[in-house]
Amino acid sequence: MKAKITRKTIEGVRQNYAVFNPSFLKRLDLTPGELVRAPPHLQGFYVMAADTIEDDTVGIHPKYFDKNDWTEGSIVQFEKFSVENIVGLIRNKVSGRTWNAQEIHSIIHAIDNEWLTPSHMATFATSCEINHLTDSETVFVASSFFEFSAKLHLRRGPVVDKHSIGGIPGNRITPIMVPIIAAAGLTIPKVSTRAITSPAGTIDSVELIMNVDFSPSEAAEIVEKTGGCIVNGETVGLGQTADKLIKVLKEVRLDPKELMIASILAKKSAAGSKYVLIDLPTGRGAKLPSKQEARSLAHLFSRVGHELGLHVESVISPGDKPIGEMIGPALEMKEAMMILEGKPSSLSLRRKAVSLSGIIFEMVGLADRGEGAIMAENILASGKALLKLREIIEAQGGDPHISSEDIPTAEYKEKIFAKKDDVVYTIDSKALRLIAHTAGAPQDKEAGVVLLVDRGEEIQKGEALFEIHANSASKLEQAISLAREKPPLVLEKMVLEHIKDVVP
Amino acid sequence: MKAKITRKTIEGVRQNYAVFNPSFLKRLDLTPGELVRAPPHLQGFYVMAADTIEDDTVGIHPKYFDKNDWTEGSIVQFEKFSVENIVGLIRNKVSGRTWNAQEIHSIIHAIDNEWLTPSHMATFATSCEINHLTDSETVFVASSFFEFSAKLHLRRGPVVDKHSIGGIPGNRITPIMVPIIAAAGLTIPKVSTRAITSPAGTIDSVELIMNVDFSPSEAAEIVEKTGGCIVNGETVGLGQTADKLIKVLKEVRLDPKELMIASILAKKSAAGSKYVLIDLPTGRGAKLPSKQEARSLAHLFSRVGHELGLHVESVISPGDKPIGEMIGPALEMKEAMMILEGKPSSLSLRRKAVSLSGIIFEMVGLADRGEGAIMAENILASGKALLKLREIIEAQGGDPHISSEDIPTAEYKEKIFAKKDDVVYTIDSKALRLIAHTAGAPQDKEAGVVLLVDRGEEIQKGEALFEIHANSASKLEQAISLAREKPPLVLEKMVLEHIKDVVP
Repeated sequence: MKAKITRKTIEGVRQNYAVFNPSFLKRLDLTPGELVRAPPHLQGFYVMAADTIEDDTVGIHPKYFDKNDWTEGSIVQFEKFSVENIVGLIRNKVSGRTWNAQEIHSIIHAIDNEWLTPSHMATFATSCEINHLTDSETVFVASSFFEFSAKLHLRRGPVVDKHSIGGIPGNRITPIMVPIIAAAGLTIPKVSTRAITSPAGTIDSVELIMNVDFSPSEAAEIVEKTGGCIVNGETVGLGQTADKLIKVLKEVRLDPKELMIASILAKKSAAGSKYVLIDLPTGRGAKLPSKQEARSLAHLFSRVGHELGLHVESVISPGDKPIGEMIGPALEMKEAMMILEGKPSSLSLRRKAVSLSGIIFEMVGLADRGEGAIMAENILASGKALLKLREIIEAQGGDPHISSEDIPTAEYKEKIFAKKDDVVYTIDSKALRLIAHTAGAPQDKEAGVVLLVDRGEEIQKGEALFEIHANSASKLEQAISLAREKPPLVLEKMVLEHIKDVVP
Repeated sequence: MKAKITRKTIEGVRQNYAVFNPSFLKRLDLTPGELVRAPPHLQGFYVMAADTIEDDTVGIHPKYFDKNDWTEGSIVQFEKFSVENIVGLIRNKVSGRTWNAQEIHSIIHAIDNEWLTPSHMATFATSCEINHLTDSETVFVASSFFEFSAKLHLRRGPVVDKHSIGGIPGNRITPIMVPIIAAAGLTIPKVSTRAITSPAGTIDSVELIMNVDFSPSEAAEIVEKTGGCIVNGETVGLGQTADKLIKVLKEVRLDPKELMIASILAKKSAAGSKYVLIDLPTGRGAKLPSKQEARSLAHLFSRVGHELGLHVESVISPGDKPIGEMIGPALEMKEAMMILEGKPSSLSLRRKAVSLSGIIFEMVGLADRGEGAIMAENILASGKALLKLREIIEAQGGDPHISSEDIPTAEYKEKIFAKKDDVVYTIDSKALRLIAHTAGAPQDKEAGVVLLVDRGEEIQKGEALFEIHANSASKLEQAISLAREKPPLVLEKMVLEHIKDVVP
């Protein structure tokens, strides 16, 4: 069917809709919820009806106007079609069967063109989570994600990257590692994200000092010039197909590990990387509770990476407490800058950034095994990393003269004090995260928590334990009362659990 | 937040939306896709934005205006909330754990109030399909479906019902069984459906001779008067919660057997039934390929039914070929009427309706074991069943004097003839279904196929095998060419398969 198209915004969950006037729909023998597709990309659109749209005209979300290079009022040939065959393929995994390369390609292609509904993708993801993917299937998924992804075309090399799994608070190593690695002459096109569950993601922090939204060609230009970048994955659009699936995964709170690995490695490949270091924070409260699970994930990363032509290594790092001492977008950016500036700051965060940078130097042969960290430490201590960050800031349109002191802090702050002499048994990341969220992070950039004591420390009555930052008195109040109710510092106890089952 | 509500129709897949003006949304700190709920029923609405709606006003689909007894322009208190805890419960089944009664109640309650997205329901269904439900879980699901269902309140009894699984073409026993059973003095409040994949459902056929859309109280009144009814499940609304889930099951083409059993038995309970006979067509091409699977399903039906206070028995019936000879809404209604009128017609269909009615007579103690079919045959042969159908037709607002000859037939018909002497090895239900669909069924009431030979019959060159009926010459042409390409009659062959694997 041919129809005139017009821009029409209806903001719901799904933007790939085609809105028809009810009488037009009837003449076309179409029903709301049916799928149509249109050249040039065979983009799929779900049929809706609204009487606010003119007859003979189809309303399309502006995003899809741009994506298809359409113009207002032009005539588009829509075609009704069915995804029954793809739904049948998905059903095979539900029944426990294994997909071949061609089948996986068809499913990922259908996701890319938005032919599948969120329910179809939820079924796909749930069947992957329960019945798992073989190594070959994971490779096929990654290859298809790569095929449909935008790419960064880089002339310089070797291209390296790192990726941390899971939201450990204060794990803001990227803005420290990228300049260390680029200062060593390597190429690191870092594509980062915003916070999902944590109080700050790399992008939430970094956008305080420079622009982060670039197209693939703009990002490539920055990297060619400076050796590195830190850009927003949502706007640069590498691995868009994986992101369509991840949106549904978040909604249903599933995270099938093979799909996660395929998505991460496809994005690294699309950015041009050849050497990838995976950081696996492990421990109580982390995404990976045991080293055994972390090791098995690391091996899977290596095997799948190998098939994709990537050299992948992994590190198991502590995930049972925060890394840095400052939690929240601005606070984490400030702490990272302080480390680059050589100011007194979190030793754990500094050591982690240096260790991981060193391993990357060893991976590419820039340093002998065991010598990388020294090289990274020298680059950091010499100030070369700070200079490199200033170059990157300038290339990304920020002020290269910015220092940690220029990063804004919250107007409302309050310290929480110890009520008696005690020992800090551990720090509860989850409780900390909730307090930071309640204080306003990550939406309020300056909100968050500053830790003033560390695990194992003896504390004295009246000593300041941590400080809450917020942009309003009411949010500060709420965060304080939450901190009193669910303290983020777990103090030492000699009875951990008391089992009271009564045997009849 | 309080807002004025107005009727606003946007026909997409999901009707439980609340449409806000974008600037109003911003002031309320709401994002499209978020969930709000509203008294009196805590119905959930998904937030959308459209600039065609006035500021300070929320657009609601007319269906939900009626459901909540709202009036145009009234003020409603919407409340933002999260279903994270329910999503967490669903995740437990993904991880292989078992739900308790309270957890299942929470999930089904959330489905009933439309707090869950289709993706959430798809994840729920996929995890049930792969990891299965225990008998207790199935009972809890059925009890919750029952709790949230509308009910038929009947004073007379005993109340009986039958249910056939799977779309075997020409299996139109309901319009024959309901009058036989009601004529025997039993009560049978039959709630039927339209075709999903088959060329005709009971409702598609029955609505040709009487109204089928009634409220629960109207249906109850018809049953009190006549002893039976045949009403549309979609409009009478028994088991609405199950139907919300089934909509998603159809979209993703899953059919977890425990959910199916819970849904069927909850609906029977809601209709007031105490005795239920399940018909399990079994064989090549049927939903249940083997008797073993059918038996295990039958036992599960009985166990779950018992816990719900129902007496459930099952029959395994032939499912490897069509039952009646006529396929399509009008054709099947005609064939059922012909059987009630005592006219020459399909012996298989007549025998099946009589056998199953007889078993129901035995279940309630109206006939001794082994004697029920004779009683049913007598009721049918005496014309009492036809008289009872006329009573029901009248009570459901149809013309009680209608006969099989008054049922309309298609304008375009064509017979397909045998090309040589042969033997009918079997009849392919799937091919037959496709031909009937291509001819226009079930949308075109008169379209369909009439079989003129049966399995095992010797046929002679030039003999008519079947006849295709359609409402337009073009649909008839298409159906004929499909019938030539994929013949629905499989002729005898002496080589069934030839295996050509070459051993290297």
